[in-house]
Amino acid sequence: MQTGARIEETLERTIARAMGAGAPPLLASALHHAVFPGGHRIRPRLCLAVAQACGDSHPPASAAAAAAIELLHCASLVHDDLPCFDDAGMRRGKPSVHAQFGTPLAVLAGDALIVLAFETLAREASPDRLPLLVSIVAAAVGAPSGIVAGQAWECEAAVPLVDYQRAKTGALFVGSTMAGAASAGLEPEPWRKLGEAIGEAYQVADDLRDVLCDAEELGKPIGQDAARYRPNAAAQLGIGGAKARLEQLVRVAADSIPDCPGRSDLGKVIEAQTAQLFPKQLQRFAA
Amino acid sequence: MQTGARIEETLERTIARAMGAGAPPLLASALHHAVFPGGHRIRPRLCLAVAQACGDSHPPASAAAAAAIELLHCASLVHDDLPCFDDAGMRRGKPSVHAQFGTPLAVLAGDALIVLAFETLAREASPDRLPLLVSIVAAAVGAPSGIVAGQAWECEAAVPLVDYQRAKTGALFVGSTMAGAASAGLEPEPWRKLGEAIGEAYQVADDLRDVLCDAEELGKPIGQDAARYRPNAAAQLGIGGAKARLEQLVRVAADSIPDCPGRSDLGKVIEAQTAQLFPKQLQRFAA
Repeated sequence: MQTGARIEETLERTIARAMGAGAPPLLASALHHAVFPGGHRIRPRLCLAVAQACGDSHPPASAAAAAAIELLHCASLVHDDLPCFDDAGMRRGKPSVHAQFGTPLAVLAGDALIVLAFETLAREASPDRLPLLVSIVAAAVGAPSGIVAGQAWECEAAVPLVDYQRAKTGALFVGSTMAGAASAGLEPEPWRKLGEAIGEAYQVADDLRDVLCDAEELGKPIGQDAARYRPNAAAQLGIGGAKARLEQLVRVAADSIPDCPGRSDLGKVIEAQTAQLFPKQLQRFAA
Repeated sequence: MQTGARIEETLERTIARAMGAGAPPLLASALHHAVFPGGHRIRPRLCLAVAQACGDSHPPASAAAAAAIELLHCASLVHDDLPCFDDAGMRRGKPSVHAQFGTPLAVLAGDALIVLAFETLAREASPDRLPLLVSIVAAAVGAPSGIVAGQAWECEAAVPLVDYQRAKTGALFVGSTMAGAASAGLEPEPWRKLGEAIGEAYQVADDLRDVLCDAEELGKPIGQDAARYRPNAAAQLGIGGAKARLEQLVRVAADSIPDCPGRSDLGKVIEAQTAQLFPKQLQRFAA
């Protein structure tokens, strides 16, 4: 099965279970709305690409890890869009969960997606890989330095930029590469640097899009970082400087792939994925 | 170590890890505030009492299960107190998390506590017991029929009372008894009925308190069910009828303890715990 189909099939099955007998109908609809149709599924694709490069010795574990990471990403979008954070009415080109279902169901849908992520790991990963996978995924999401902590930095008066960006965006990319390796039975720590580089590249690209794109193309409001006094690489480095940083990070990512059976193929996948990060408006800034 | 001390020690260690290097200081404070000082810790005490009755063959697993259940209970309190739900300014006799730290940090603290619960299980339970423990705990909390689903029923126009009460309160008591048995290596399913009976008894007692007590004694606002059009057993059955139902449930609980090495001792623990459920104001209604 192709990577994209594996991801969607696992997510469909997982969400169907959460929407099963006894579920409150609006919560069930909100869960489905939060996960389908998806965005680029970039994190689960990265997780599966790493697992395949590592031999993918237990495909149910890698599919579960990829699905868990995407569920947690969707949960973070649902909560980040809430009125008390970004107050975003649109997401992925349609109403955000709270805009469609109200704030209470958006809070609960996010909570249920977090729980579902760990439940999916427990159901589908083999017991010998489960403790490490849960630990990797939990570290990527929770306190002290996962994406929840990243969002919490926005509530502090003084924000250490490196901690903020690493946690807010980088942590779940690190979780994706490390969980991919761990699901295949390999030591995950050597895969941290790749996740960090792709995560920072993604953040810089997102910052560029927030400045360069129009809302229709992006599927969500633009100019949000400036409006919310959030750090933005394009604002700090200039658009040319941010583009140079993005190019550098793409090279760092390519160079930091650890030795593994499928290193060459993984390099191509990552090259294709990171090429998509460059907003088309950047062509104007080509040297 | 005494039961209460085991629970507090595990929670202290767990929260300290979440508050570790790199944590945003306000999020760290909010996490501590949400968990300490605790209430009666009735769910983790129940979990450990069942584990002990079952032989408690792997104490780190039972301590982790008890702590995970309490962390998830605390998370549910933090989110249920939010302005979009109960808008409760007080909890356990002090400001609720959102009243003290603001709504954004309350949302994030709840999220981080959910993640921490599963991380704690993964760190401390042995791999052979981990899949079942994660599944039991996740079912007690998430969709379709855990406490998140119970809260979500309040967003529906039509609420099936049995589904609502089972999910909103009962599910985490069922999780407590079943996780206690599973942590000791026993089949958890026979322990469901005990959790259901104690859970419903607890709900009826809570409904009675919402009607009978004053806010200072309760540590949170009273009369909330009527104010929010929520089902309340004391309102539906009358105070005498609710008291009779509570007495019946206590008997059902005592009768539904499965055969196990420590059945007699567990019966005494449950008798003592359920005796505390009766609000002292009920003495006026003694026959």
